[in-house]
Amino acid sequence: MVKIYFITSNHHKYEEAKKIFDEYGFELLYLKYSLPEYQSQYLKESIIWKAYEGFKILNSLFIVEDAGLFINALNGFPGVYSSYVFRTLGVDGILKLMNGIKNRRAYFEACGVLSLGNHIFKVFCERTYGLISYEKKGSGGFGYDPIFIPEGSTKTFAEMDIDEKNRYSHRGKLFRKIATYLEEKYSR
Amino acid sequence: MVKIYFITSNHHKYEEAKKIFDEYGFELLYLKYSLPEYQSQYLKESIIWKAYEGFKILNSLFIVEDAGLFINALNGFPGVYSSYVFRTLGVDGILKLMNGIKNRRAYFEACGVLSLGNHIFKVFCERTYGLISYEKKGSGGFGYDPIFIPEGSTKTFAEMDIDEKNRYSHRGKLFRKIATYLEEKYSR
Repeated sequence: MVKIYFITSNHHKYEEAKKIFDEYGFELLYLKYSLPEYQSQYLKESIIWKAYEGFKILNSLFIVEDAGLFINALNGFPGVYSSYVFRTLGVDGILKLMNGIKNRRAYFEACGVLSLGNHIFKVFCERTYGLISYEKKGSGGFGYDPIFIPEGSTKTFAEMDIDEKNRYSHRGKLFRKIATYLEEKYSR
Repeated sequence: MVKIYFITSNHHKYEEAKKIFDEYGFELLYLKYSLPEYQSQYLKESIIWKAYEGFKILNSLFIVEDAGLFINALNGFPGVYSSYVFRTLGVDGILKLMNGIKNRRAYFEACGVLSLGNHIFKVFCERTYGLISYEKKGSGGFGYDPIFIPEGSTKTFAEMDIDEKNRYSHRGKLFRKIATYLEEKYSR
């Protein structure tokens, strides 16, 4: 069985990813570790740095991932700084900033890097478009999940279980893409 | 005359610094360049990386500087991400977040690194404590200056000219400290 490490300090992300890799018959291992991050306006850039950092500690098959919420009316804020903003302002801070704003459009983007060993990295990025709700709803998920309603649903991510969230979410799409890539690679 | 380069993409910062170095009899040269930044929760950490990046392009006496506004009631937000938050939410976004909040305490911190050549770097940090105003005032300065009232004054930074702002400001204190250090070093 192919084993892949997921280097992350967020167990919610690991659980979401594990569900998908299980379906594909891959074993996803949890390497709980907070890798250093580099400031960039683009997830694609910062994630490749993170992968380089990961490669310093691990020369096996591994994944690193980073995601952000980009709100149109706030010029893309909180974007690549989503986790920092979550720790300081929280979901309530975002709702306060969105107070009185009719344009609720936003998207989540997730970028991941698959490290194939020997400094070979493959980058993947996926988005899910949706709306910022007017109030918090649901208790599942993490981060901004209680205020994000993906296109095609009327529920926030926090009102969904992991399987339903994975069907809609940026991270669900990302991990399915990575798993599909691995499936093709290892069935050759 | 001792010549020092200030590597920054912000001409306001250069003008503030030049006024101080002039007083000490040093020539401050403007090297307009946007150095790569590294994400860290601490200005002291990110500035030393910036200095390393600067050293790749310049082996003369130079300064790099970084500053942030830390608001107590917002858990230190916008902090090290002050310039990104300024570009996305702006001063109005901060006022919106502070709406209804009585605790207006905040501080500006500036950290600078003086590169003495041959990979020798000296780090300096200074703070100015003050309050977030209830509305924007003044048209001078840049960034969050229209909403920051330093301790000991009733004006915002944006209501002051450069000399007055330099007397109160984190960056004024920082550059005086660096200039004093250089004065002692070169009079030996």
